[in-house]
Amino acid sequence: MLRAQYVGNKKISVGTAVSVPPSIGEVQVRVAYVGLCGTDLHILHGSMDTRVKIPLTFGHEMSGEIAAIGSQVDKWQVGDKVTVMPLDWDNICPACKAGHEHICQNLNFLGIDSQGALQGLWNVKSSWLLKLPKDISLIDAALIEPVAVAVHDVRRAELKPGEKIVIIGGGPIGILIATVAREFGAKILLAEIDPNRRNIAEEIGFDTIDPSSENFVERIIEWTNGAGADVIFEVSGAATAVLQATDIARVRGRIVIVAIHSTPRDVNLHRVFMRELTIIGVRVYEKKDFELAIQYVNDGKIPCSQLISKVVPIAEISEAVIALESGQAMKILIEVQEGIK
Amino acid sequence: MLRAQYVGNKKISVGTAVSVPPSIGEVQVRVAYVGLCGTDLHILHGSMDTRVKIPLTFGHEMSGEIAAIGSQVDKWQVGDKVTVMPLDWDNICPACKAGHEHICQNLNFLGIDSQGALQGLWNVKSSWLLKLPKDISLIDAALIEPVAVAVHDVRRAELKPGEKIVIIGGGPIGILIATVAREFGAKILLAEIDPNRRNIAEEIGFDTIDPSSENFVERIIEWTNGAGADVIFEVSGAATAVLQATDIARVRGRIVIVAIHSTPRDVNLHRVFMRELTIIGVRVYEKKDFELAIQYVNDGKIPCSQLISKVVPIAEISEAVIALESGQAMKILIEVQEGIK
Repeated sequence: MLRAQYVGNKKISVGTAVSVPPSIGEVQVRVAYVGLCGTDLHILHGSMDTRVKIPLTFGHEMSGEIAAIGSQVDKWQVGDKVTVMPLDWDNICPACKAGHEHICQNLNFLGIDSQGALQGLWNVKSSWLLKLPKDISLIDAALIEPVAVAVHDVRRAELKPGEKIVIIGGGPIGILIATVAREFGAKILLAEIDPNRRNIAEEIGFDTIDPSSENFVERIIEWTNGAGADVIFEVSGAATAVLQATDIARVRGRIVIVAIHSTPRDVNLHRVFMRELTIIGVRVYEKKDFELAIQYVNDGKIPCSQLISKVVPIAEISEAVIALESGQAMKILIEVQEGIK
Repeated sequence: MLRAQYVGNKKISVGTAVSVPPSIGEVQVRVAYVGLCGTDLHILHGSMDTRVKIPLTFGHEMSGEIAAIGSQVDKWQVGDKVTVMPLDWDNICPACKAGHEHICQNLNFLGIDSQGALQGLWNVKSSWLLKLPKDISLIDAALIEPVAVAVHDVRRAELKPGEKIVIIGGGPIGILIATVAREFGAKILLAEIDPNRRNIAEEIGFDTIDPSSENFVERIIEWTNGAGADVIFEVSGAATAVLQATDIARVRGRIVIVAIHSTPRDVNLHRVFMRELTIIGVRVYEKKDFELAIQYVNDGKIPCSQLISKVVPIAEISEAVIALESGQAMKILIEVQEGIK
């Protein structure tokens, strides 16, 4: 089988490897498509070298079908279309005991902390699998993981129908949050600096605004009739956006920090006080988020074809990474194994 | 009557003034005691000169009794013991319309934005009054306003019985939050740098810790069996405390920002993400908070005598301010008018 590995020094190696049969409790998945995301780029840029073990078969947004089944696994059949929720928790830490397994204090994130999806045949614990509907497109299904992120973020925000929200950052996650929020009945303004990304968002049907424009805050206040937005999703990762978020939030508004800010950020705590704002941290997803994401993808609620810029064979993954880095692509999928549609 | 005014240039003037009868809808309160707080110090230090109108009769923590009643006021009687909830909202802004009158977008805070309690006879709208029990001590009752702050903060934290909380900052508000949290069934650790304040807190019955000690974070993690605290109240106003708060919070923990941070602060948003933390802004109180505060003071739940360092006649207010500034006093009350007990 082919597999793609991060081998350190900011380099990817694609090569062949011998597959091994699934162990007890495992299922072997024939991987169809793997989406690349910002975290993958962080790995490839060496920013996570202290966390990852090299060589690392990365990749955690995937679709595929079952190729083989290990012993002591029931409920699954060869040929089932599946995706993997790439979280492996320890079940014994205080977070797990409190019911927050998805943010286990010793979380093993597949494709980051252990081997991931960019391999033709991937052996995974059967408990990590979610079954997909028979007729789902496996290309679209590779988006289920980022859709689950968006579902989780919208749920953590406790979004109510009719609420006016601003999403700062119009990459794939920003647009997916907009899409899920639309399903929840929100009124949406998507703030994105890049005109190409604004165009894509508008084609999908969202109103956009340039957050670097001089009157950005005033326009949000005007749009909300003097109140400020009910919820702000900070998806850009920019320091400026964190400060803008408190400026455009209504009294008792919620600010959801979706982007990963690797260094501490200036936060206007005076505004947090004056307006009794709530800042909400979000990370990955729970199983129910994955289940709703599957439903949304299957029901055609997600603008998959507009979000997937390219599908690239695994042998050309390095070019795909360069295209992503340039910021010209939204989502790029890697086709891992031919012959699955 | 005597009154104390901030007259600009960091100066207080105490002098006599002629009282006027209450207007339509107003009640005249004979002010008994007024507590001084951090905000009063900010006013007197000139830090709020752009907000306050000079001369300003300041003071907003008070107790008194009704001296006279204006026309079109029912329900009140001369001699009733009262306190004033010093918030005057406009009822028409988006925040008021959404039911958050206490943080009205155009809030008039009595004693800051308009004339306050440091005057012998204070005319106030009858709607701002809360009735006190007949037998309550008017000295203790001057603490009702800061107790209401603490009640509000604990309620916003949605504190549950048995939760382990850390309060960073052991001044009057920190100790009152500890007191209210104890009533709510929390297990409390009070973090305070000053050994004198730690002593007072321990005399009142709270376990304390020095947040500047080298192993502060480790001790909290140990106290919580590896989980981290359920809720952290940041009451110190220190930049370090804001960073410590995210370090000591459990997965899904809540951080309540009680102190007023006048400049943006570094917040560890990576930790907010990793542990799905929630940061909660709090400001003043709602009427129900005041009502519970009255009940707590009347029922002897509040360590009033340990918190009130001194009661000082209004003529000596400048000395009281100096004592407060030195950090040696907890709460100082100003006796505005003699002859009320």
